[in-house]
Amino acid sequence: MEITLQPLRRMLKNAGAKRVSDKAAEELGLVLEERSMKILDEARKLSEHGGRRTVMKRDIKQAVKHQ
Amino acid sequence: MEITLQPLRRMLKNAGAKRVSDKAAEELGLVLEERSMKILDEARKLSEHGGRRTVMKRDIKQAVKHQ
Repeated sequence: MEITLQPLRRMLKNAGAKRVSDKAAEELGLVLEERSMKILDEARKLSEHGGRRTVMKRDIKQAVKHQ
Repeated sequence: MEITLQPLRRMLKNAGAKRVSDKAAEELGLVLEERSMKILDEARKLSEHGGRRTVMKRDIKQAVKHQ
């Protein structure tokens, strides 16, 4: 997994959780990573479709809409 | 933003992107953080509903299904 757990734990605390199990943070990381990969794959295709080698902000925005 | 950009850039590279603009990585981070907060808020409510002070893996799994 590429996503690091510490930022996720901070977010959980920000959301008002008193305590967070390690497995809960890990599960959230896995879900986010899976969703990200779908968005990223779409964004990369959009950038290639536009004849670019760089994924831009507009590719991400468009890919999110396609979800 | 709590999520760090470096793991997102690595994921973009893993998805086959040649290059990634800073704003693209940032946009992805914002989208993920927004979605995470929704999942987390639901998970926290589920844990409280179960009379627990700790958010568990099963709360995250259930919260993701509610999305």
